[in-house]
Amino acid sequence: MTERLRVIPLGGVAEVGRNMWVVEYGEEILVVDAGLMFPESDMLGVDFILPDISYLRERTRHIRALVVTHGHEDHIGALPYLLSDLGTPPIYATRLTQGLITVKLREAGLHRLSEMRELRPGEAVTLGPFRLEAYRVAHSIPDGVGLVIDTPAGLLVHSGDFKLDYTPVDGRPTDTAKLAELGRRGVLAYLCDCVRVESPGYTPSEKVVGDTFDAIFAQAEGRIIIATFASNISRIQQVLDTAYRHYRKVAVVGRSMEGNVRMAQELGYLSVPEDTLLRLPDVLHLPPEEAVILCTGSQGEPMSVLSRIANRDHPQFAIRPGDTVIFSASPIPGNEESIHRVINSLFQQGAEVIYSALAQVHVSGHASQEELKLALSLVRPRYIVPIHGDYRHMALFRKLAAALGYTPEQVLLAENGTVLEFGPEGGRVGGKVPSGNIFVDGLTVGEVDHVVVRDRQLLARDGILLVVIAVDRRTGRVVAGPDMVSRGFVPGRDGEQILEEAREVVRQALDHGGDVPADWGFVNRKIKDSLGKFLYRRTQRRPMILPLVMEV
Amino acid sequence: MTERLRVIPLGGVAEVGRNMWVVEYGEEILVVDAGLMFPESDMLGVDFILPDISYLRERTRHIRALVVTHGHEDHIGALPYLLSDLGTPPIYATRLTQGLITVKLREAGLHRLSEMRELRPGEAVTLGPFRLEAYRVAHSIPDGVGLVIDTPAGLLVHSGDFKLDYTPVDGRPTDTAKLAELGRRGVLAYLCDCVRVESPGYTPSEKVVGDTFDAIFAQAEGRIIIATFASNISRIQQVLDTAYRHYRKVAVVGRSMEGNVRMAQELGYLSVPEDTLLRLPDVLHLPPEEAVILCTGSQGEPMSVLSRIANRDHPQFAIRPGDTVIFSASPIPGNEESIHRVINSLFQQGAEVIYSALAQVHVSGHASQEELKLALSLVRPRYIVPIHGDYRHMALFRKLAAALGYTPEQVLLAENGTVLEFGPEGGRVGGKVPSGNIFVDGLTVGEVDHVVVRDRQLLARDGILLVVIAVDRRTGRVVAGPDMVSRGFVPGRDGEQILEEAREVVRQALDHGGDVPADWGFVNRKIKDSLGKFLYRRTQRRPMILPLVMEV
Repeated sequence: MTERLRVIPLGGVAEVGRNMWVVEYGEEILVVDAGLMFPESDMLGVDFILPDISYLRERTRHIRALVVTHGHEDHIGALPYLLSDLGTPPIYATRLTQGLITVKLREAGLHRLSEMRELRPGEAVTLGPFRLEAYRVAHSIPDGVGLVIDTPAGLLVHSGDFKLDYTPVDGRPTDTAKLAELGRRGVLAYLCDCVRVESPGYTPSEKVVGDTFDAIFAQAEGRIIIATFASNISRIQQVLDTAYRHYRKVAVVGRSMEGNVRMAQELGYLSVPEDTLLRLPDVLHLPPEEAVILCTGSQGEPMSVLSRIANRDHPQFAIRPGDTVIFSASPIPGNEESIHRVINSLFQQGAEVIYSALAQVHVSGHASQEELKLALSLVRPRYIVPIHGDYRHMALFRKLAAALGYTPEQVLLAENGTVLEFGPEGGRVGGKVPSGNIFVDGLTVGEVDHVVVRDRQLLARDGILLVVIAVDRRTGRVVAGPDMVSRGFVPGRDGEQILEEAREVVRQALDHGGDVPADWGFVNRKIKDSLGKFLYRRTQRRPMILPLVMEV
Repeated sequence: MTERLRVIPLGGVAEVGRNMWVVEYGEEILVVDAGLMFPESDMLGVDFILPDISYLRERTRHIRALVVTHGHEDHIGALPYLLSDLGTPPIYATRLTQGLITVKLREAGLHRLSEMRELRPGEAVTLGPFRLEAYRVAHSIPDGVGLVIDTPAGLLVHSGDFKLDYTPVDGRPTDTAKLAELGRRGVLAYLCDCVRVESPGYTPSEKVVGDTFDAIFAQAEGRIIIATFASNISRIQQVLDTAYRHYRKVAVVGRSMEGNVRMAQELGYLSVPEDTLLRLPDVLHLPPEEAVILCTGSQGEPMSVLSRIANRDHPQFAIRPGDTVIFSASPIPGNEESIHRVINSLFQQGAEVIYSALAQVHVSGHASQEELKLALSLVRPRYIVPIHGDYRHMALFRKLAAALGYTPEQVLLAENGTVLEFGPEGGRVGGKVPSGNIFVDGLTVGEVDHVVVRDRQLLARDGILLVVIAVDRRTGRVVAGPDMVSRGFVPGRDGEQILEEAREVVRQALDHGGDVPADWGFVNRKIKDSLGKFLYRRTQRRPMILPLVMEV
């Protein structure tokens, strides 16, 4: 009997975030990445979303390794939540990625759970039926890799998150020679980052951002405040280098960014020019033309350093006219409003604000159309699997592949949970394994379900109206109420009148004829129905109606 | 005594939407525009926001006219809500704008409230101390105007929403000669549309969209569905013209768009090529290569035609593979997620989807940097007032004006309610009149305040926990409860245990020593406090806690 290769996304297809892939041959499993996703704005109160690992729970003893491509949240963020449930397999990652994972697991007190093994580009590791090898890719974080997984069914290549930057900040471009070599060896399937397929041409090199910084630093007369992602080590390097060239000192502000800078420095991934990094109080004592403050908050996150500065709520630091603030990131869809609010507020306090609409202070870490075409032309896979994108990106990637001669059948579009099967007769989209949204909400993981979120959506739109009634438990007679309490709902100008009529509607619903204990389930439904109709007619709102009948 | 000219925005500065300006000389008033604004995503349950007209309420008898620059929602949308409160002044507008206002007021049964007077570009009207004249501007709707208001204090120019399109669809470009003439006459203050000041160069002509349509129509083999704004008469004209050139027929779907098309056709602002406009059933019976469907929903609005199609919820129409869907609009910030959801779903159903990231199927209706510089150089005002933008746009406009030699004091940045005063000694930013957000929520106008919206935000994030207790009204003894009911809040994995402990927390808060009526206000606060702390410690969530004590 011939075993099949099964490749299953548990997160990260037809969405951007919470990347996790299962590679299974026979019973043996490799897991690639374990990321989290930030919720859409109508997933109210949800902090973030994890991949659904139901499929792996009964198979933990077959998991040979968890392989991590790079250290971004959408690839490592789920580790603290899922590592135990995956049976604490050994984690394979490059050194910087290991460092970022360790910082994260240590915060949760979980850094001793799994053994860390170093993934060295160019060196192969045998894991059961799999031979795993990593190759360098350039991305917006150093030490990212793509994966070559040699299986008995053929070569599987996972692109990682990549672009073809020939002049990256760390001097380590994507290993295009490796892509060509893979093409010669013959690739069964290429899982390829598709998120920037809408962009024609090439994604600019990270170096461009350094040039923009240089121009801004040359003109700025006051302090410079730069916000970027805490994990964007390359960008942090560029800020340090530019500051050094312009005789400025840098303070890094914010817990996550400070932690990453310390770790990256220790591991040698961040080279700090002499005397350039100071503590915030020391930088604040410098003349303004010598000060740079590097912080988080590029997405307008409410509790970030930059948002607190914008809200005049930072304990050590306030904007002064003459300050220049740089948003060195592009808005993640859904964050535009918060970002604009922060920008407006900084302008109002007299700062000069520079953001991606005004200057090239950010470039993407993902490959554009011509880079994708080059990668496909080198790897020449038999099957293409677009990953790391919304459905529209996947569909456009299929179109791009068609221009290179691929048939629709050769481009496999998966959903989360879809089993992609590869056997002697070829590859195909097979059945489904469980997949869903696992919500993290405060300390609660997975217990918050769609009902809870839908309740919040109802509450958010129209508020809630409580109807409180006390009844005698023997006779069913109403002894107090109906009282009404509302939150987030106002009945409008004729409110008193409407509420009085509403009480009458409830009284009628309660009238069940005689002094007998009523069927409260039925009465509840009746109150909800008749009150709901009444209120919609009078206010065109549908508050959540919650009858509370208390037997005394 | 010399009177002063007072110019006051009641909406539409440091924000985009709900435009309304007050121009006051002595006691006499002109009101310019009466728009609405769509809420930001954290203004939960709010349908839209109106300007605050408190300042005008006691001055209605001095309002000589309401002048409307063009027929977009952010300039006319508040009319049904505010026209009565403004004392039903006569409305001055061009013919198409009149038509759009009438369609809107008729829906509300208010079309006889105010007298409509035609504003003819080039013809002056005297209104008290004001001499009003309109001049043509090109925008994304035909028949838009800028306003010249001659006052005893000097010439005030209101730019309207404009760009310098020399080849607009209706053949009526912005009257640049008029701008030059104004410059010669001497302009005191120029209120200038600043919303596109971030864009370098020139905004492309609306004609460009027609060229893109031509290319798409030439290639599409199936039906073509185009979504745009209901009021975008120029875009609708281009769709009709392109369809005619490619031997296709068009059906207009959606109440608001059908209404506008009928009206614009009657007034001669839309010229429908012979036999090109059909009813939807007739278009659906045509071969796919002859069918075009024009509808609303370019912003992913949940109840729009296109969203219903994307959700497979339209009664007459479903997507088929081979259909081409065009989003002929750019996303309004905050709408990206909904739009992407619709695009993804259309791709999933097999449609080809074309949107602004992929092709020039939309151009802005507002002037970019070089156009703004040209306008300023022609009008050469003494003072500049950036209007129709966020604060960041206003700040950037000041910077742009600085490049043309204007001092910061010559660029007056207002907030809503700011009084801009112009007298013999010059112009300055004066005091403030009342200004606030008037929320429209269902049938309720203005009664929904920030407390209600904040309640909804709390409910949306963490839900609600109700604590219901019945007490004897004489003794204060608890006769039933505490019962707990939650919505949108789950205490997590140890939920039962946590709720039992929570009941104990409430019992302790209720223990007020002896059988005497308690101070329920105090007990309520105590329950909220201790339960809130307890729940945050155990769940890291802060549900709204609502103790309901019922005396029986």
